[in-house]
Amino acid sequence: MPISPNTDDLALQTQSKLGDLLAAMESGTFKQVQKMLNGLQPAAIAHLLDSSPPQRRIILWRLVDKELEGEVLQELSHDVQAQILARMESSEVAAITEDLSADDVADILQHLPDQVIQEVLAAMSHQNRQRVESVLSYDEDTAGGLMDTDVITVRPDLTLDVVLRYLRRHESLPDSTYSLMVVNRRDIFLGILPLTRLLTSDPNMTVREVMDTNVVVLHPDMKDSDVASLFERNDWVMAPVIEENGRLLGRVTIDDVVDVIREDADHSLMSLAGLEDDADTFASVTRASPRRAIWLGINLLTAIIASSVINLFQDTIDKVVALAVLMPIVASMGGVAGSQTLTVVIRGMALGHIGRNNLTWLLSREFQVGAINGLLWAVVMGIIAAVWFEDITIAWIIAAAMVINLIFAALAGALLPIVLKGLRIDPALAGGVALTTVTDVVGFFAFLGLATYFYT
Amino acid sequence: MPISPNTDDLALQTQSKLGDLLAAMESGTFKQVQKMLNGLQPAAIAHLLDSSPPQRRIILWRLVDKELEGEVLQELSHDVQAQILARMESSEVAAITEDLSADDVADILQHLPDQVIQEVLAAMSHQNRQRVESVLSYDEDTAGGLMDTDVITVRPDLTLDVVLRYLRRHESLPDSTYSLMVVNRRDIFLGILPLTRLLTSDPNMTVREVMDTNVVVLHPDMKDSDVASLFERNDWVMAPVIEENGRLLGRVTIDDVVDVIREDADHSLMSLAGLEDDADTFASVTRASPRRAIWLGINLLTAIIASSVINLFQDTIDKVVALAVLMPIVASMGGVAGSQTLTVVIRGMALGHIGRNNLTWLLSREFQVGAINGLLWAVVMGIIAAVWFEDITIAWIIAAAMVINLIFAALAGALLPIVLKGLRIDPALAGGVALTTVTDVVGFFAFLGLATYFYT
Repeated sequence: MPISPNTDDLALQTQSKLGDLLAAMESGTFKQVQKMLNGLQPAAIAHLLDSSPPQRRIILWRLVDKELEGEVLQELSHDVQAQILARMESSEVAAITEDLSADDVADILQHLPDQVIQEVLAAMSHQNRQRVESVLSYDEDTAGGLMDTDVITVRPDLTLDVVLRYLRRHESLPDSTYSLMVVNRRDIFLGILPLTRLLTSDPNMTVREVMDTNVVVLHPDMKDSDVASLFERNDWVMAPVIEENGRLLGRVTIDDVVDVIREDADHSLMSLAGLEDDADTFASVTRASPRRAIWLGINLLTAIIASSVINLFQDTIDKVVALAVLMPIVASMGGVAGSQTLTVVIRGMALGHIGRNNLTWLLSREFQVGAINGLLWAVVMGIIAAVWFEDITIAWIIAAAMVINLIFAALAGALLPIVLKGLRIDPALAGGVALTTVTDVVGFFAFLGLATYFYT
Repeated sequence: MPISPNTDDLALQTQSKLGDLLAAMESGTFKQVQKMLNGLQPAAIAHLLDSSPPQRRIILWRLVDKELEGEVLQELSHDVQAQILARMESSEVAAITEDLSADDVADILQHLPDQVIQEVLAAMSHQNRQRVESVLSYDEDTAGGLMDTDVITVRPDLTLDVVLRYLRRHESLPDSTYSLMVVNRRDIFLGILPLTRLLTSDPNMTVREVMDTNVVVLHPDMKDSDVASLFERNDWVMAPVIEENGRLLGRVTIDDVVDVIREDADHSLMSLAGLEDDADTFASVTRASPRRAIWLGINLLTAIIASSVINLFQDTIDKVVALAVLMPIVASMGGVAGSQTLTVVIRGMALGHIGRNNLTWLLSREFQVGAINGLLWAVVMGIIAAVWFEDITIAWIIAAAMVINLIFAALAGALLPIVLKGLRIDPALAGGVALTTVTDVVGFFAFLGLATYFYT
């Protein structure tokens, strides 16, 4: 019978499975917990582990069947995977990764210390070791690091009938085989033979006659985010990886690319808050604090810079204390307007939309949006300030300061990510902090500067 | 010859293609521009259009060959697609979507007014209309809305040999056919027959003997984000969609799921800045301003709330003007600490990690991280304040206020998204604003309140 997942929220489902497991754990029937856990798909077990605080995670992991461990491990998020691997002997790692494909094993090993990698490799069979080593020789963030070397190749001069008989001699084909690779006797890549075409063509024709040669290939040193863009734009499920000289090395498949897409998309979100992309949701206090503390420290520095601007105007504030009440509004509006522009630009850059050709247009648009929205809310805020403090001068001052700050915010939001990228600093990581510094300093300076001019 | 993309940055490549096109456009050789443009893959043309400001986009679109228009249209981002469709007659829409699969046509039509949808459907062939209508009858954000109805089905009692001969009678198989669907004579779904298994099994066996019945199926009303989680976790490339009664409706394929994954991931990032997920990077001023203006208005309201807290303490500030200098620091540190927690929780919820079972653990962790980091930077800031203003009292006050605000920030960052979700308000959209309101109000109140107590 086909299995039908509940149509309810999947997250709720994980949570209710977790609830059942916890209830069973508390009532002490470990045998039952074990049975429930190992009855799930490896991906579901991995999701349960990802959704558990550290101690519960260790208990659950101990209950996973030996033969499922490799598959579960591979499905875990990187951070959680690393924590579990850190507690294992190299021989154990070698044993549980035995049945995984080379790219998945390499993916797991990449997060271990060199010493352990060598021990794990030494404990592997010769053939497996060679395959894993070939993937490990490429950087993790490249097509080579994503690649699977387990491919079925055929020669161009065979007839399809021979190919069909050759395939039938296999017990099964490697996972994610949607096409066969066509190579000559020196392993030079010539084209692909999609299984659908093999099945619909006349068996007396040769591979050469039906193969698809109009294929975009990847080089092993291509960046994984570029690989992901190509897959996403062209709706691919597989792409061959070849060396400079045309020799076939392996293939990249969509299941690994989906992970790259998810990680890349996560990156902007997490970096803007100064967090690591692949952070464990349930990282312990000692693991979560340091990175966040550094980020708070950097923010403290920029906040002090903004405060020293206010410090310049102590005399003015002393005279008109209402300024202290209103000044955070100017800074806050600038911060929000700037972060809108910043987010649009960072996303546009990640999608490859923004370059030299359209930068002027973008800056002019942001300038106009900043000016229009600045004017709109400056008028509103001016009226509010006039009524609140019964003072027309303060109304004009805050309105003018808001227009100035919103225009600066728009330009800074658009230019900062481009400048930071030019300096090879990650705009998603540094952009937010740099932006708030600009909008705070400009906001306080414009507001208090104008006030000093008009009140003294 | 296999085509090899440049190993340089892909974004740069689009930008340089765009540069070449613009140069050609300026030198007036439209024929050449047209040739360059239409020599590209439809996805690459779509990317160029996505990367162009409105006016240039209209010119480029006019230069696209008629027979490529449908494919290019389908690859465009939704917002840009809608802009182009708005300028077309319904007969044109019907003509250019003729060769697309039902799910892609439905995807395009969903963004049009009802009147136009009816006209486009009326202009279609009977068979196409039926297919598109069946997809359109489901909500866009469900498995039914993602589904493609063009599937190859086989009966369980056939031998594989018969299946192979049946397939060979096809000119070609539908795009993304990796498995055949096995159904009985009432179209009830029984299992799938992967092409790889068809190719490796004995041709004399029956479909029933080799088919895979251990298949997770989707219901048409399942949420698209849940469909995406299932594909992502289980490394699927295809899943069947069946009715409650077991009848096969169609299938969802990975190419459409990748778009959902990208959009879901974009959603948190864009919403946190009050922007639309699928916004056009090059939206015109009149399109970009209103949404952002609303967001700025909401922020103005919350900033005024924070300011009215300061207003309560005018007398204290009047006495010690240094308070005005330091108070933004307390608010800013709370905002950053809170947004770190908020981001971790929003992402954890999106990944389905967080539920009732681990909420207490999470709150306790965030409380501890907030307290530790609060204490750390409170000490640092206290020393700085003592030296800066030569005042020990103000040092104690700012240190205490920072610890209080960072603990509140951590708890608010963790609880707000969960409370908002319970109220069916999107946490990614409302979380950031709600959080800053809390951290500003608590920050100003704690700092100025303590100051009032100690200085008056």
